[in-house]
Amino acid sequence: MSTQKEIEKAIAKLSTNGKALYLAQDQGLEHAADVELTGESSNPDYVFNIAEKGEIDAFICQKGLAEKYGGSYKVPIILKVNGKTILTPKDDPYSQITCSVRRAVELGAKAIGFTNFVGSKYQSQIFDDFRKIQEEAHDFGLPVTSWMYPRGEAIKDEKASGILQHSARVGLELGADMLKMSYNGNQEDMKKQIKFGGKAKMLMAGGAKTKNTKEFLQQIKEVDEAGAFGFAIGRNIWLHDKPVAVTKAIRDIQNGKDVYTALKRLE
Amino acid sequence: MSTQKEIEKAIAKLSTNGKALYLAQDQGLEHAADVELTGESSNPDYVFNIAEKGEIDAFICQKGLAEKYGGSYKVPIILKVNGKTILTPKDDPYSQITCSVRRAVELGAKAIGFTNFVGSKYQSQIFDDFRKIQEEAHDFGLPVTSWMYPRGEAIKDEKASGILQHSARVGLELGADMLKMSYNGNQEDMKKQIKFGGKAKMLMAGGAKTKNTKEFLQQIKEVDEAGAFGFAIGRNIWLHDKPVAVTKAIRDIQNGKDVYTALKRLE
Amino acid sequence: MSTQKEIEKAIAKLSTNGKALYLAQDQGLEHAADVELTGESSNPDYVFNIAEKGEIDAFICQKGLAEKYGGSYKVPIILKVNGKTILTPKDDPYSQITCSVRRAVELGAKAIGFTNFVGSKYQSQIFDDFRKIQEEAHDFGLPVTSWMYPRGEAIKDEKASGILQHSARVGLELGADMLKMSYNGNQEDMKKQIKFGGKAKMLMAGGAKTKNTKEFLQQIKEVDEAGAFGFAIGRNIWLHDKPVAVTKAIRDIQNGKDVYTALKRLE
Amino acid sequence: MSTQKEIEKAIAKLSTNGKALYLAQDQGLEHAADVELTGESSNPDYVFNIAEKGEIDAFICQKGLAEKYGGSYKVPIILKVNGKTILTPKDDPYSQITCSVRRAVELGAKAIGFTNFVGSKYQSQIFDDFRKIQEEAHDFGLPVTSWMYPRGEAIKDEKASGILQHSARVGLELGADMLKMSYNGNQEDMKKQIKFGGKAKMLMAGGAKTKNTKEFLQQIKEVDEAGAFGFAIGRNIWLHDKPVAVTKAIRDIQNGKDVYTALKRLE
Amino acid sequence: MSTQKEIEKAIAKLSTNGKALYLAQDQGLEHAADVELTGESSNPDYVFNIAEKGEIDAFICQKGLAEKYGGSYKVPIILKVNGKTILTPKDDPYSQITCSVRRAVELGAKAIGFTNFVGSKYQSQIFDDFRKIQEEAHDFGLPVTSWMYPRGEAIKDEKASGILQHSARVGLELGADMLKMSYNGNQEDMKKQIKFGGKAKMLMAGGAKTKNTKEFLQQIKEVDEAGAFGFAIGRNIWLHDKPVAVTKAIRDIQNGKDVYTALKRLE
Repeated sequence: MSTQKEIEKAIAKLSTNGKALYLAQDQGLEHAADVELTGESSNPDYVFNIAEKGEIDAFICQKGLAEKYGGSYKVPIILKVNGKTILTPKDDPYSQITCSVRRAVELGAKAIGFTNFVGSKYQSQIFDDFRKIQEEAHDFGLPVTSWMYPRGEAIKDEKASGILQHSARVGLELGADMLKMSYNGNQEDMKKQIKFGGKAKMLMAGGAKTKNTKEFLQQIKEVDEAGAFGFAIGRNIWLHDKPVAVTKAIRDIQNGKDVYTALKRLE
Repeated sequence: MSTQKEIEKAIAKLSTNGKALYLAQDQGLEHAADVELTGESSNPDYVFNIAEKGEIDAFICQKGLAEKYGGSYKVPIILKVNGKTILTPKDDPYSQITCSVRRAVELGAKAIGFTNFVGSKYQSQIFDDFRKIQEEAHDFGLPVTSWMYPRGEAIKDEKASGILQHSARVGLELGADMLKMSYNGNQEDMKKQIKFGGKAKMLMAGGAKTKNTKEFLQQIKEVDEAGAFGFAIGRNIWLHDKPVAVTKAIRDIQNGKDVYTALKRLE
Repeated sequence: MSTQKEIEKAIAKLSTNGKALYLAQDQGLEHAADVELTGESSNPDYVFNIAEKGEIDAFICQKGLAEKYGGSYKVPIILKVNGKTILTPKDDPYSQITCSVRRAVELGAKAIGFTNFVGSKYQSQIFDDFRKIQEEAHDFGLPVTSWMYPRGEAIKDEKASGILQHSARVGLELGADMLKMSYNGNQEDMKKQIKFGGKAKMLMAGGAKTKNTKEFLQQIKEVDEAGAFGFAIGRNIWLHDKPVAVTKAIRDIQNGKDVYTALKRLE
Repeated sequence: MSTQKEIEKAIAKLSTNGKALYLAQDQGLEHAADVELTGESSNPDYVFNIAEKGEIDAFICQKGLAEKYGGSYKVPIILKVNGKTILTPKDDPYSQITCSVRRAVELGAKAIGFTNFVGSKYQSQIFDDFRKIQEEAHDFGLPVTSWMYPRGEAIKDEKASGILQHSARVGLELGADMLKMSYNGNQEDMKKQIKFGGKAKMLMAGGAKTKNTKEFLQQIKEVDEAGAFGFAIGRNIWLHDKPVAVTKAIRDIQNGKDVYTALKRLE
Repeated sequence: MSTQKEIEKAIAKLSTNGKALYLAQDQGLEHAADVELTGESSNPDYVFNIAEKGEIDAFICQKGLAEKYGGSYKVPIILKVNGKTILTPKDDPYSQITCSVRRAVELGAKAIGFTNFVGSKYQSQIFDDFRKIQEEAHDFGLPVTSWMYPRGEAIKDEKASGILQHSARVGLELGADMLKMSYNGNQEDMKKQIKFGGKAKMLMAGGAKTKNTKEFLQQIKEVDEAGAFGFAIGRNIWLHDKPVAVTKAIRDIQNGKDVYTALKRLE
């Protein structure tokens, strides 16, 4: 078992000046690869290169990319250890474990990623998976980032503030070290999410590509100012035509710059 | 395996003059965190502080709070090792294991908490979980507190005296060391519950916040006089504006004071 | 693994002159404790005392009683390692494992008790449990007593002679050492049950309390004369106002006395 | 792991001049014991005696008989490690594992028996059980005999030649060493079954008692001439009034005698 | 764990000049053996002989054939470790594990084969099986070939280009080293499949026997030119009357010859 101090030290290594920026790509498994991974983004080397050259603290991916490409790059990896595809029949969601913690450790991962679908009818199975993953990760000294996503028929509004606060607290009580959660567009709600997450650090999930970069960076600004620990972004970076510049713009905002200053990175 | 004497000694350390008072907070997982954990109560530091300053023998919480906050406080922890959320679809209840006994031991827990939903259609799975948890806890010398809650479609009246007596006896036969149970408001029924629990010690569950403190303390008095070992209270302490005083008032009653004397703690 | 000779020796220690009489109490788990355990019978010390003072070869109980009370008495324990409650929704029956064989051994148990509900739609799970329990018990040298109870929607008549014969044979083929079975009131049928049980020794289950002791002892006489190895009795002993005398009366019959002579024990 | 040569040697020890004859009795578990095990056949000693005195290469039985009776006889045992009863609700069939391979080895078994219900809706579970049993058996050097029985709603004709050929091939590909299969009465079909079974040796299953011994021996002759490795027979031996003579008659046919010559054994 | 370099070396040994050609036969388990394995093809020795004499890099088969026939031939084996039959009730497909990785290693297998039915309602169970198999195979240094077959009610068109691209990417992200996939007849689609498979090498699955050899070899040419790593062919080889010549013709095409030149092998 790692102490809370050791976990905090490990998280500190995955951040810059107390703020984190992670590049993520597991959409080839989760979504329709042919639809999401357009252009060069279907080439893992292209994306790993962005992670290495951009202002990125870690790259989040599934086992296969870590095994086949990870060894060629110096970027720290947060190994996502569960997942599903969009192909399966519609039902409440469940993400199957796709990589053992032991293998993640052997691959040199610096943290573990795991999706908790709070409110899914498979919640018991999900919590059971999470318990084992979280405890084994801490046995190896790895922090655990939990996607806290309220989902399923029992969840009427995935973006309701109360549901998001409850989900953040669930992540805290279950032992997550970082929480990757959606931003519902209301800064006050994000502050509450962060409060209910307590010592579990809040990461904003990037979501679908926004229409323009300014809109995206304004979200980043709002969430950063609300007190978030950082961001885990995929499509808004690797689908952008200037992906490395986007990472620098986000970091500018995390360093206190305003959106207009940050946007200059993209000129 | 621990002997019954060793378990009794471990319980004695979690009580004062043969009576126990535990502070509990897992409502952030179990209930809607945003609704239940109002005001400062959503801050685990606030609640741990009450536990440390009040007349509390142990604090009951989930793994996440124990990991991230427990190390900063001297209060003994009873680790609640299963749980569920209010978000999942309505059905007979089942609480998933959320912490291994090994991890609870590593975190320094002094006892284990576990919810048995007697009468649930998931009772077989629940009993299976309990068997493993109970035996492993005793292997490590930790007493086991079992929430004995009759629940589910097959239970017509959760507060029926017969059901409560049967539930207490089930806890005893399955090997629980302490039983956390509801008080149905009838002191004679509580005496019967206690009788059927035998050498498994009875703790009254606090339940929702009562309208006024006097009403709450009168319940405490009735249950203490019925012969209960103690109390496991959450909302009636940490939602109260004088939480430390409430703990002292409860202890007064456990020490034989009457309700009016105890109420002076709150003036 | 124990040899058949070793198992037979272990059974011999749990009998007197080749006949066995066991006191049983798990009705507080299985049935409505408040209804069945009337008067002093809800106090485990009361029942253990009967076992110690009466003509009893062993006491059959669940883990909780063995842990919390067993250490204070010298009576050998047959640990019942599975069970259920009457509270769960009506369905074909399944008894969950409630105690590991390892723990039973650590508690000093001299044999294992297990319920096989033959014909239940959960029969596969039950047989799987039994296989593991039976083999582990024999690894530790403990004989296994199997409740062979035909139950479930597929069983039209639980007392039909053919069903009882088949059930006895199932117990034998699965590896039970003793069979605890109902007596359907027909002595010839009991003889057939015993024949089909082969080297698995037959114990009559006591069942509900009979109206009068004479009627009960006549059953005992019929079954003993049919060639049964012995009796596992609960309510007809500990609900009786002269429980120790009842045990002596049963033993008289096992020693060849007639019912009228045995009844004198109760005067 | 055993090599194919070692397995073939082990099979050779369970045969006579390259032909096998096994006596089987698990009908007391599988069928209605009271209906099938008539007369002396319900007494395992009676049946073991036939095995010992008759021309039998091995006796096939469940764990309970091996434990309680097997030690008294010199006949090699093929331990049947899964089974079911006729009592459970009608559904596609599944035979639960009833004995571990380790225990079979400890009991001195010389081979393992296992029922594969091909086409059952429980086929996945059955194949999973078989895989583990087959591999563990080979770890201990024991050959595996697989009952290859097409069964379930998806099987329209259990005796269709194509289904039987496919079933034989399934047994071969899954790793069975011997196949116990039904004879559909057509010798050409049996030749095809044998061809599709490849190096997995074919045993004819005896089935229900035939009306007269001549009819039974004619089947034996047809199947032996088709190239079968041998026979696994139960009721047609131990329900016969001259069981030892029947075994000699079968052996005569395996040695090339005609049916009329073999029938003289029964005069 | 093996490094990516070690896995690539192991794959190199299973190919010739960077191109692979595998002979496969598990149709006796998967399909109706009596219908598919016509003529001599039902005799495993016949098929192993083709593998040994033809231009084959490895033979793909189930455990049973590897155990009983593999030791007599020098052809490397890719052990297919899961499978199902056509006999089970119609439903979304699931292939049960039929051989452990440990046993595959003991049998001298040089790689593992596994079917992933992407989109099946059993996808979670399939991914769970795959994770364990893939990790254990890499622990032993064995590459993993994954059949990436979109199947089930949720898949409207198994040959849709988008579905095939997504499936290829799923295989890559889950950690497959080679992907065995269908060719939908459109060379541009195959190029995309190969692109989305990334460093997971593409093998074309042979499928049903084509009407004439020319048509078959034209497919081979198209797929080879699209950049595929190789081919895993069954019926189009062992049902052909000149099976060894077919393997040489395929190899000719892999070596850059045109279809007409390759066809001369069959004259």
